[in-house]
Amino acid sequence: MQGTILRTVTERLRSLGEFGLIRTLVEGLPEAAGVLVGPGDDAAVLDASGKPLLATADILIEGAHFDLALSSYADVGYKSIAVNVSDVAAMGGRPRWALVSIGAPAATPPRDLEYLYEGIGDAAREFEIGIVGGDTVRAERLVVSISLIGEAASTPVLRSGAHAGDALVVTGPLGAASAGLALLRAAKENEQARAFLGAHPELARAHRRAQARVAAGRALALAGAHAMIDVSDGFCADVGHICEASGVGVLIDDVPLAPGVEGAARILGIEAVRFALAGGDDYELAAAIETPLPGALVAGRFTEEPGVRLASGAPVPAGWDHFRA
Amino acid sequence: MQGTILRTVTERLRSLGEFGLIRTLVEGLPEAAGVLVGPGDDAAVLDASGKPLLATADILIEGAHFDLALSSYADVGYKSIAVNVSDVAAMGGRPRWALVSIGAPAATPPRDLEYLYEGIGDAAREFEIGIVGGDTVRAERLVVSISLIGEAASTPVLRSGAHAGDALVVTGPLGAASAGLALLRAAKENEQARAFLGAHPELARAHRRAQARVAAGRALALAGAHAMIDVSDGFCADVGHICEASGVGVLIDDVPLAPGVEGAARILGIEAVRFALAGGDDYELAAAIETPLPGALVAGRFTEEPGVRLASGAPVPAGWDHFRA
Repeated sequence: MQGTILRTVTERLRSLGEFGLIRTLVEGLPEAAGVLVGPGDDAAVLDASGKPLLATADILIEGAHFDLALSSYADVGYKSIAVNVSDVAAMGGRPRWALVSIGAPAATPPRDLEYLYEGIGDAAREFEIGIVGGDTVRAERLVVSISLIGEAASTPVLRSGAHAGDALVVTGPLGAASAGLALLRAAKENEQARAFLGAHPELARAHRRAQARVAAGRALALAGAHAMIDVSDGFCADVGHICEASGVGVLIDDVPLAPGVEGAARILGIEAVRFALAGGDDYELAAAIETPLPGALVAGRFTEEPGVRLASGAPVPAGWDHFRA
Repeated sequence: MQGTILRTVTERLRSLGEFGLIRTLVEGLPEAAGVLVGPGDDAAVLDASGKPLLATADILIEGAHFDLALSSYADVGYKSIAVNVSDVAAMGGRPRWALVSIGAPAATPPRDLEYLYEGIGDAAREFEIGIVGGDTVRAERLVVSISLIGEAASTPVLRSGAHAGDALVVTGPLGAASAGLALLRAAKENEQARAFLGAHPELARAHRRAQARVAAGRALALAGAHAMIDVSDGFCADVGHICEASGVGVLIDDVPLAPGVEGAARILGIEAVRFALAGGDDYELAAAIETPLPGALVAGRFTEEPGVRLASGAPVPAGWDHFRA
């Protein structure tokens, strides 16, 4: 429904100015529980019903975090919400409300902003969150800055609780998003990459529309996971954050590869496991748990010896780091 | 204390990469109540003690919202928090926790980011809020995106409750911030402007370090104000938002000018009242109230006749609008 509403918004948008623009875009977003006063006043008023809150923020900037030649505005909108939901999932919590601040070049066609909000709306519906406010300003390049408020699990799962001997579990196979991005980048000049993307649309989709594992995170929290993180910077780097915060190490011996990653790796001449270990953007959850749930993907074991090590003996690849990259 | 801590951070910062950088900068920030888990995990965990929440966000972008030739990094940090606090004040609420997302050019000297966080820390101390998380990424120009969570008044004061016959009150005199900015811009080539700024440091300060009227907002909420807004876009524009949301109009007959505004206006050849009516960035609160508190500044009266009108009969100047400007 939102899509239809937004698509019928006419090119008059620009002449409405900032306030009209925000109002029009926000009107199409789904309603959510606990919103006493939604967007349009100085602040939203929210009913948190007494539970401890979770709060997290991520800022995505054109050029650094997304390439509008490879992802649509709707993809960027969707992903900007999903990566924040993923942080709440990594605490075992439930996402509730988001604030959306956007900087856009003055020349951005209103239709593109509509698409951006369509993607935001898709994610809001999927993760059952309310978009309760934000800000819209001019910028030289597109900036999407999201804050998300969630409800904490009765025992939030931090990064710092892993014990030596805990299993390292992961909620899904890894590497699809970074393999998808690498294929998308190669596709312009590499016909094989183009053909492979056509046969494996899930790879481009993994890059463009990050999944956030809310249900899996809540199940792991209920099952007593000792520590948890979402895999955003790269599996080794993120598991390394757990190790550092918990004062333990980890021995990784079995990395589940997402379907298509090996094929992509062959075409691109890259070792497949690198996508899974260092690619980033997977948004699966990695957790330390004493007794893995039935059917869990166990990727290794936490150790007293510090550091992240691979059972293969191979060197550990570095993850994504904005200021060092 | 934070200043000292931050200033002793060495130039090693860059080599620490993103994670070390954030950790170092955040370490110097003041502690705050209700923070069960602070920055450094996937999300902060906050104890909201059952009260309804307020949530608001503002994004400031170099070039559009601030000019690093006219404001220091510390000013930008301080103001980025204060403008959000002002939104919470405009609901009659109490600010509690902020998320700080920053995009900075890779070449930004770590010292400048330290200064930015010093200003953020100054505001956090002044308004008694906790900086509980955020994100730091690369950008071409400095971007500071803040979300603020507050505690609502028992009856949050919206924009929509003004009645015809209510007094229009304002929590302080207007025009200092925009007069200060105009003088700062003129000072390079106008010696008189430079001298006047020297004699009236409060004008530059009003532009660089916005005040947020938390106590005044709470007092107005307790006194039963019908509607309230903070003066950010310009007095006429913001009072116009109250009128539009409330289905009333307003007749403005007495605009309190901040000290120095008339002198600045003379030097710059601008009508003084324009700074007060359309300048923006004042961050005083404008409210509709049946019976003004003793000593309140009464600037006019809400009317059944729609629209914003000046008793002088002069045309109403437009406020600041990012997409129309």
